[in-house]
Amino acid sequence: MSDRLTIALDAMGGDAAPRMVISGANIALRRYPQVSYLVFGREDRIAPLLEKMPRLKAVTTLIHTDDVVGAEDKPAVALRAGRASSMRLAIDSVQDGRAAGVVSAGNTGALMAMSKFVLKTLPGVNRPAMAAFFPTLRGESLMLDLGANLVCDARNLVDFAVMGNAFARTVLGIAHPTFGILNVGSEELKGHESLQEASATLREANLPGEFVGFVEGDDIAKGTVDVIVTDGFTGNVALKAAEGTAKLVNEYMRRTFRSSFVAGLGYLLARRALRKLRERLDPRRYNGAIFLGLNGVAIKSHGGSDALAFANAIGLAIDMARYGIIEKTRADFAALVQRPAGSAEAAAG
Amino acid sequence: MSDRLTIALDAMGGDAAPRMVISGANIALRRYPQVSYLVFGREDRIAPLLEKMPRLKAVTTLIHTDDVVGAEDKPAVALRAGRASSMRLAIDSVQDGRAAGVVSAGNTGALMAMSKFVLKTLPGVNRPAMAAFFPTLRGESLMLDLGANLVCDARNLVDFAVMGNAFARTVLGIAHPTFGILNVGSEELKGHESLQEASATLREANLPGEFVGFVEGDDIAKGTVDVIVTDGFTGNVALKAAEGTAKLVNEYMRRTFRSSFVAGLGYLLARRALRKLRERLDPRRYNGAIFLGLNGVAIKSHGGSDALAFANAIGLAIDMARYGIIEKTRADFAALVQRPAGSAEAAAG
Repeated sequence: MSDRLTIALDAMGGDAAPRMVISGANIALRRYPQVSYLVFGREDRIAPLLEKMPRLKAVTTLIHTDDVVGAEDKPAVALRAGRASSMRLAIDSVQDGRAAGVVSAGNTGALMAMSKFVLKTLPGVNRPAMAAFFPTLRGESLMLDLGANLVCDARNLVDFAVMGNAFARTVLGIAHPTFGILNVGSEELKGHESLQEASATLREANLPGEFVGFVEGDDIAKGTVDVIVTDGFTGNVALKAAEGTAKLVNEYMRRTFRSSFVAGLGYLLARRALRKLRERLDPRRYNGAIFLGLNGVAIKSHGGSDALAFANAIGLAIDMARYGIIEKTRADFAALVQRPAGSAEAAAG
Repeated sequence: MSDRLTIALDAMGGDAAPRMVISGANIALRRYPQVSYLVFGREDRIAPLLEKMPRLKAVTTLIHTDDVVGAEDKPAVALRAGRASSMRLAIDSVQDGRAAGVVSAGNTGALMAMSKFVLKTLPGVNRPAMAAFFPTLRGESLMLDLGANLVCDARNLVDFAVMGNAFARTVLGIAHPTFGILNVGSEELKGHESLQEASATLREANLPGEFVGFVEGDDIAKGTVDVIVTDGFTGNVALKAAEGTAKLVNEYMRRTFRSSFVAGLGYLLARRALRKLRERLDPRRYNGAIFLGLNGVAIKSHGGSDALAFANAIGLAIDMARYGIIEKTRADFAALVQRPAGSAEAAAG
């Protein structure tokens, strides 16, 4: 192995695969010239694409397989029957050290199940989580879990806080991240018991950064904290509710500018600035569900990804690998285990 | 009692009470000239305000009490110690038939606890819910519960669907409302067991309108269904996440128009249209948490309500009373009881 970072790509996952995977890798190569690729999938479909992109071809090893995980396959079925699939082989290459991370736009449940089975969770982690970051009034924040764990106990939430915190410190470059637990009120004794318990544990846990306690739904877009911790059900609904609302306001805006000639003229004058706004809010910039808590870097790109969105997901995997997220998360969990969560005696001892 | 509809107002609840309550009633009076008011609170503070609004004074009966429920009072404390409070007396007036509905901008938990204790739930309703409606791409939708019940079983969710359905048919004027349960995926067997069970029951329940099954977070702003059913924890987070995002996009927009002279000029041309957009999205238009499932009309206006927001909350109470929401909901529950939920035998028998 050279010093180049190698990223494994499942070329067959996603609506526009393999074309957008290969084009996405080509875009990512311009941004990260020091990266090599292992590309898994059907050679007859991928090789002709690589032919057109000689610089990418030069840093890519194509590994053929006919087998593909279907978008509708159940995770358990994919796990059992998909051992030769492009998705599985790509994950295997991270496990055996050939690649530093894997990116797939394929079936989310299958990718999580396979990644968990092959890469395993980090010591101290009960369940891995799916995270994403998104724009806020103050910059960018991370939220997890987003759907990997629909029902979470206090232990899970504490784990998510540790993982999210490590991500914020490494990939987002925030030295002392603020983090909070999503709840229906910031005061006192609101919400489920597991939230109270997780909050008490995190107050004692002495993680790097600052635990602010509970935050509410509107704190997501405000950017009140760098990391928002929640169960996968609530996180999934909240993220989609926010995305839906952003689209709603944009659509209202579009209709507004079309409502009169003068408004249309105003749009023409403001359009350069408005284009920048659209770019800032472009969901492709925030593409990629980040799998955290695994003993390896794995990113799920959106199933509807285009090449640009897939390139962003690759960039995320590269950043996670080169900034050592796995090592940082592992160290944080080791520190947490030494100081048993929520136990005052242990903290004193 | 005359034929006029009478609404009871807790004049002492809310940050800007009693001024915004009285001014709000005055605005509502212009829209609904056939309404009278019972106003509960401190005479020394309310009477001078009424003096300045002779038309409102003419249709208002002021009932003095010194006692006020504090914004921070626990519901149980308010229930025990607040029997002479303006909030409690206002609710009592609905219970004994003097008023057709009550509006308060006071302590939400206390208002819900007192309303439930005094008005009782409708026959067949296990727990009342808090609902709100909001703008969507297709018009307006209703979501419930928004925080009254943090943990819900299938039975609760079914009840919420019945209540929300009745509201959509009466107050929103939709003859055949569509309704769905909020989940993390629209397909098959996703989400908690209680969601599956509630979905199965609603498929059998034969309510007016159309049960579409599961909807996701982005369906809220899309307006995919007229009524979205969820537990109070998820609903609260989703609604606040949506509100926060709308504010975020607006703030980005404001910064965009200020980013250059030309963009600013564009804003000047488009500002009339943009003002209409702001009005359309004005949260004051959608003010008021609607208490559903009670044997009486009760509306919680936002604690930070101004007069316009409070007037909208009054309008909602008036609409609920005059379109007979209680009777409709009662009839729907009676029909549901005759056809035991989820039981195929009963549906056939």
